[in-house]
Amino acid sequence: MLKKGIILFLSILSFHVKADDGYKLWLKYDLLKNNTKVAEYKRFSDFIDVQFPISPIIQTAEKELKKGLSGLVGATITKTVKTSGGIVFQKDNALPKEGFKIVAKNGNIVISAQTDKGILYGSFELLRQIQTENSIASINLSSSPKIQLRMLNHWDNVLGTIERGYAGSSLWKWYELPENIDPRYVEYARANASIGINAVVLNNVNASARFLTKEYLEKVKALADVFRPYGIQVFLSINFASPKILGKLKNSDPLEPEVKKWWNDKAKEVYSFIPDFGGFLVKANSEGEPGPQEFGRTHADGANMLAEAVKPFNGLVIWRAFVYGPNPKGDRYKEAFNEFKPLDGQFAKNVIVQVKNGPIDFMPREPFHPLFGAMPKTPLAMEFQITQEYLGFSTNLVFLPSLFKEVLESDTYVNGKGSTVAKVVDGSVHDYPLTAIAGVANTGSDRNWTGHFMSQANWYGYGRLAWNHEISPEQIAEEWTKMTLTKEANSQKIIRNMLLTSRETYVNFTNPLGLHHIMGQNIHFGMEPWLEKSARPDWTAIYYHRADSVGIGFDRTANGSNALGLYSKDVQNQWNNPQTCDLKYLLWFHHVSWNQKLSTGKTLWDELCTRYYTGVTEVEKLQNDWLKVKGNVDEEIFEDVKGRLAAQHREALNWRDACVLYFQTHSKQPIPTPFVKPTRTLEEMKKIVEIYQLK
Amino acid sequence: MLKKGIILFLSILSFHVKADDGYKLWLKYDLLKNNTKVAEYKRFSDFIDVQFPISPIIQTAEKELKKGLSGLVGATITKTVKTSGGIVFQKDNALPKEGFKIVAKNGNIVISAQTDKGILYGSFELLRQIQTENSIASINLSSSPKIQLRMLNHWDNVLGTIERGYAGSSLWKWYELPENIDPRYVEYARANASIGINAVVLNNVNASARFLTKEYLEKVKALADVFRPYGIQVFLSINFASPKILGKLKNSDPLEPEVKKWWNDKAKEVYSFIPDFGGFLVKANSEGEPGPQEFGRTHADGANMLAEAVKPFNGLVIWRAFVYGPNPKGDRYKEAFNEFKPLDGQFAKNVIVQVKNGPIDFMPREPFHPLFGAMPKTPLAMEFQITQEYLGFSTNLVFLPSLFKEVLESDTYVNGKGSTVAKVVDGSVHDYPLTAIAGVANTGSDRNWTGHFMSQANWYGYGRLAWNHEISPEQIAEEWTKMTLTKEANSQKIIRNMLLTSRETYVNFTNPLGLHHIMGQNIHFGMEPWLEKSARPDWTAIYYHRADSVGIGFDRTANGSNALGLYSKDVQNQWNNPQTCDLKYLLWFHHVSWNQKLSTGKTLWDELCTRYYTGVTEVEKLQNDWLKVKGNVDEEIFEDVKGRLAAQHREALNWRDACVLYFQTHSKQPIPTPFVKPTRTLEEMKKIVEIYQLK
Repeated sequence: MLKKGIILFLSILSFHVKADDGYKLWLKYDLLKNNTKVAEYKRFSDFIDVQFPISPIIQTAEKELKKGLSGLVGATITKTVKTSGGIVFQKDNALPKEGFKIVAKNGNIVISAQTDKGILYGSFELLRQIQTENSIASINLSSSPKIQLRMLNHWDNVLGTIERGYAGSSLWKWYELPENIDPRYVEYARANASIGINAVVLNNVNASARFLTKEYLEKVKALADVFRPYGIQVFLSINFASPKILGKLKNSDPLEPEVKKWWNDKAKEVYSFIPDFGGFLVKANSEGEPGPQEFGRTHADGANMLAEAVKPFNGLVIWRAFVYGPNPKGDRYKEAFNEFKPLDGQFAKNVIVQVKNGPIDFMPREPFHPLFGAMPKTPLAMEFQITQEYLGFSTNLVFLPSLFKEVLESDTYVNGKGSTVAKVVDGSVHDYPLTAIAGVANTGSDRNWTGHFMSQANWYGYGRLAWNHEISPEQIAEEWTKMTLTKEANSQKIIRNMLLTSRETYVNFTNPLGLHHIMGQNIHFGMEPWLEKSARPDWTAIYYHRADSVGIGFDRTANGSNALGLYSKDVQNQWNNPQTCDLKYLLWFHHVSWNQKLSTGKTLWDELCTRYYTGVTEVEKLQNDWLKVKGNVDEEIFEDVKGRLAAQHREALNWRDACVLYFQTHSKQPIPTPFVKPTRTLEEMKKIVEIYQLK
Repeated sequence: MLKKGIILFLSILSFHVKADDGYKLWLKYDLLKNNTKVAEYKRFSDFIDVQFPISPIIQTAEKELKKGLSGLVGATITKTVKTSGGIVFQKDNALPKEGFKIVAKNGNIVISAQTDKGILYGSFELLRQIQTENSIASINLSSSPKIQLRMLNHWDNVLGTIERGYAGSSLWKWYELPENIDPRYVEYARANASIGINAVVLNNVNASARFLTKEYLEKVKALADVFRPYGIQVFLSINFASPKILGKLKNSDPLEPEVKKWWNDKAKEVYSFIPDFGGFLVKANSEGEPGPQEFGRTHADGANMLAEAVKPFNGLVIWRAFVYGPNPKGDRYKEAFNEFKPLDGQFAKNVIVQVKNGPIDFMPREPFHPLFGAMPKTPLAMEFQITQEYLGFSTNLVFLPSLFKEVLESDTYVNGKGSTVAKVVDGSVHDYPLTAIAGVANTGSDRNWTGHFMSQANWYGYGRLAWNHEISPEQIAEEWTKMTLTKEANSQKIIRNMLLTSRETYVNFTNPLGLHHIMGQNIHFGMEPWLEKSARPDWTAIYYHRADSVGIGFDRTANGSNALGLYSKDVQNQWNNPQTCDLKYLLWFHHVSWNQKLSTGKTLWDELCTRYYTGVTEVEKLQNDWLKVKGNVDEEIFEDVKGRLAAQHREALNWRDACVLYFQTHSKQPIPTPFVKPTRTLEEMKKIVEIYQLK
C-alpha cells in the first residue's frame, strides 16, 4: 500500500518536476545517490550551532546549509543543538579576513572564520565537498582568497540591453525597481557568493549618467539590499561628464573646484543610500567616452578627484587602462602602456587601475598585458572577459579557465623568475595594499543564465580562480561537471576533456599561430580578415595580420613597432626570435614568410592551413564526444548543447573556409594535402559575413 | 505507514516544486480540488478515439488532452478505446473550416470538426471548460472563428532586442537557430494555439533585409517547423529595399522588371524552405522605412508587385496603412485616410491593408480609425497593440480587452446602424473575401513572458477576441483569472474587477477627457505635455493638446482640421457637438474653454483635475484590492504584482503632478477642492522626465 501511494505521488510529481533548464546553475541540491556518502554526510546534519555573532550573512550561511543538506542528503536540520552530529560556526580571529577553516571535530563539522563572510564561504565550500562527494568525516581544510576584491563587471545598459551580451537582456529590471524585486536577484547573489565573488559593478562602463540620479540610486539601493546578505558589495560605472550632464556645470574638468564639489556631494548622496557602496568604475577617454584629457588633465587627475570624493566613505575608484588612439603608424599594443606607465605613483591610495588581460581586446589568445609588472606603485586589477565577445558568442563551447590560467601563469620576470601575472595581481610582487580582479559577466535573462549551458562553467571558473589562482583548470572542470552535469564517472571524464580542449580548438579554427583581431567589425562574430577600411585604422583586420605576398604577422620586435620592448628582458628573450618563439604567439610578434619552416616541420602556410582544418575536425570530435554522454546528462541540456555544437561546427567551417581562401590570395599556394580545398569561394564567404553587417 | 511515506515524499517534493513563476501562462494543469467536478471529468478521460485522419496537428490535440487531463483530473488515458468514457475526434465537413463542435454523446465527449485545426481548437476549448470547472456531462457547444487570420505581430529585431518590448529580449534566438531549438518555442506555440492564434509575423516591421537571406530562411524554417503542428503559419516583415540591399539591383522600384523578377525568385526561394509560408508584412514609406513612393509609385503598386510574387504559393501581402508625413499645418489624424482611401479597389486580391485601431498611434484611448468602413473593396485588417508602448510598459496594470472591445464595438454606420468596426474586420459589412486581425505581441524572454504578470491576460484576451469578438471583457477576465490565478470565488471577483476597471484608471491619470500623445518623446513612457520641439512637429505634445490661455483640445470639426469629416454622418453627429460629445472623446475633437461647464456639472479645468486626482486614488484602490487576495494566489505572483502596483502608483503621481501643474500654466486656475496642490513643482517634474531622456 505504501508503495502504491508512493507511485501515485511519483506519477503526479513527474508532471511537476521539469527537465533541467539550467536555472539552478551549479547549486543543484538533488538527492545524492551514493548511499554510503549520504549516510556519512547525514551524521553531521542534525543541527547548526551558531557560535558566532548573528548577522544577515550568517543567516544566509545557515539557510544555504539547510537548503543544501535537505536536498543533497535528505536531512532535516532541527533547532535543537546537541554536542555532536551537526555543523558549528565558530569565530577565529587568527584566520585571514574572508578565509575559513573546516575541521571535523568531536563528531561535528566546525566552520571557523574571522568574519561572517568567511563563514558564508566556508559553508559553500562544505556544500561543494558534499556535492562532489568527497569524504568529510575527517575533513581538515582551510582556504582564504588571494585577491581582496573579486568582481563581476556587468556591461548592462539602462534600457535593458547588454553590450556584448549573448544570453538575453539585462538581469536588472530598472523600470520595475525599486518596488519590484525579481526573485532571480537572490539566485544571482547565491551563485556569486558560492564562488567567492564579493563585488559587482551593475552597469556598463559606457555609462549612462542616469545611474547617479536620485531616482536610480533608489533602484541601486534596492539591489544592494538584496546582495548585502550574500557578502556582495555594489559598484557603479560612472559617466565622467556627469557634472555637466546632471549638474548643469559648464564642464567636468576634474581640477575645477565646482566639479570637485559636485562629485563630493554626489558621493555623499550615494553613500546616504548605500552605506557600504563599493565605489566607481571609470572608462575615460576611450572609444568616445568623456574623460579628463578633454580638459588637458591626466588620467591620474581624473581618478584622484573621484578618489577624494569617495574617500570619506572608504570607497574605491577603479580606473580602466583600456585606452588607445587612432594612429595608423602606431601600434595599439603599446598605447595603454605609454599612457599609464608614466603615471605610476601618481594615483591616490584608493585608486586601482584595471587592465585587460592582453594589450588588444580579449582575443582568443593574447600575450599578457605589458602593464603587469610595470606599475609597482599602482595596484593593478586584472580584467578578464567572461562573456564571449570574440569567442563565439553563445554558440561556441570555449572553456575560459584555460585562457585565464594561461594569463595568470605568464611570467613577467620583473622581480626575477616566478613574478607571474597572478602574483602581480594578488599583490605579492609589488606589495600592493589593494588587490582586485574583474570578470565581465556572461549572465543575462536567458533561463540558463549564460545562453550556452556550458558557459556556466566560465562564470564558475572565473570565481574559483579569482578566489585562488592556483587551482587548475582541470580541477575546475571536474568540480563543475560533477556539481552541474552528471555523477557518472565516464561522462564526467568525457565532459572534462571537452572543456579542457575547447579553447585551443576555438583558437585553431579562428586565430591560429597568434593571429588576432580578424573578426567581423561591428558584431565581433565570425571572420572578416579582408577588412581594410573602417572608421579607424586599428579597427580593421589588415592592421593586425599584415598579410602580403611575403608572409603574415605583425613585426613587434625592435625592427618593427618594438612593442616587445615594453616587457622585461626575459620575456623579450622568450618571444624575440621567430625561430624559438612559441608558435602560439608567433604572429603576434613576427612577420613570417609563407615558406618559413616551423618547429612542426611544416612551412608557415602549411601549418596555418593545418590548424584551420584541424580546428574543424576538433569541433567534430566535440560533437561525437557529446553524443557519448547521452543518457547520463539531463535530456534538455543534452539537446541544447548538441544543437549549439552543431552551430559551432557550421561556424568553424565558415572561419576555416574564409580564412584559408583569403590568406591564399596572399600566399598564392595550394591547400596542402591531405586537406581538401573549400567547396565555397571567397566571394561566397564574404557574402555570409555581409549578412551580419545588415541592419 | 502510507501517510508517513506520503509526507516524506511531499517534503522532498516541496524542494522541487517551485513557486509559480508565471511560465505556464493560463495552461495550468494542476490537479483540481473540486472532487465532484474531477469525478465528472474523469468519466470521460479513459481514452482518446481518433476517428479523424491522423496529422501532426491531430497528434498535438491528443498530446495536449493527455497532458491536461492527467494534470487537471489525475486521469491516465490509455490506448484502449472503449465504447464510452472517452473523448472522440470526429470529422464533420458541415462545420466551418477551423470551427468545432463539442457534444456529450453516448457516454463520450465528441469533438468534431472539418479540419485538424478545428479538432485542436476544440480540444483546447474542452480543456478550458475543465479548467474553469464548467460541467461537461451534457456539453453541447460549437464555435468557429469570425476572422480567418488571427495574427501576432512581433516587433523583434535581428540582434535580439524588441522594439517597444518590455519583457526582456526576443524569444527568437537567431544566432542559435536553426541548430538549437529552445523548448520555449513549443510552449509559445501551445499558448497561441490554445487561444486560436493561427499566424505569427516573426520580425519587426522596421525590418532587416537579413531575414530574406538563405542563412536566415533556414532559421525561419526551423521555427515554422516547430509551429506547424500547432496550426500556426509563419509570416515575415520585409524591407522594401531588399532588391537593392540584397540583390545589388540599382533600385527597388516595384515597376522595374528586374525588381519584380528579384521578388518572384525570392518568393520561390522562401516557399522552397517553408511550403506553407504565410506571406509578407510591409511597413513602407513610413517613419523612414523605404517604399514605392521613393520611385513615384503608390502603395498599391508596391503591394501588388509583392502580391504577384507570392500568389503562385497562395501567399498574402499585408500592407500597413500607418503612414504620416511631417506637416505642421496638417492633422496627422487624416493622413493614412487621405493616402489609402483613393487606392480602394486598386489592390490585388491577395493583399490585405492593415490599419491600426486608431488614427494616431495606440493611445490609451482613440476614436476608431476612419479607414474602417471607408474601403469596401479592400480587406482591412485590424492592428491592435498588446505590448503597452503607451500604456505604462510593464509596470502598469491595464487590461486591454476593454480597449479592444471598445474599438470593435464602435459603429461606423457605413451600412446603417450596427456596421461596427468588428463587422468591417470580420468581413460582414463589405463581404471581404479575406479577414484578418493582428496584435503586436507583448511577449519576451522574461520568465513570465510578459513582464507584468497580469499582462498575460492581454495576450490571452487578444486571442479570445480575435477568435470571437462577441465575447465580453467580463468573460475574458473571468476565464483568465480562473485558469491562471485562483479558484477562490471572492478573489476571482476582486481580480476580475481590478482588470475591468484598470484601463479607465490608466486613462484617468494619463490622458483624461480625450487628451492624447502627451507622453515622453523617445521612450513613450511617462509624461511630457510641455514638449514643444522635436524632429517633427507631429512628434511634439503641443501639436495634439493645443492648450492655451483659452482652453485645450484639438478642434477637428469643420471649423478646425475637419478630421471628423472623414467619418459617416452618424458618427460625425455623435462627436460634432462639444455639448453632447462623449467626454471620453471631447478633447480629440474640440478645443474647449477652461471654464466650459461639462455634463458632469464641473468646468473643464475642474473636471480635468478631478480625473487626474481620481486616477491616482483608483490606483490606490487597485493596490488595496490586491492585498485582499493574498493567500489565495501564488505567493511569488502576489509579490510581483504588488511591487508593480506600487511602481504604478509612483508613476500615476508623476503623471498627475506633471500634467496638472503644466496645464495650470495655461488655465491659470487653482487646483479645485477637495484636491491638494502637488507638493512638487513643475520644474521638479520636468527633471524626472529628463532622466529618461539621458542616454
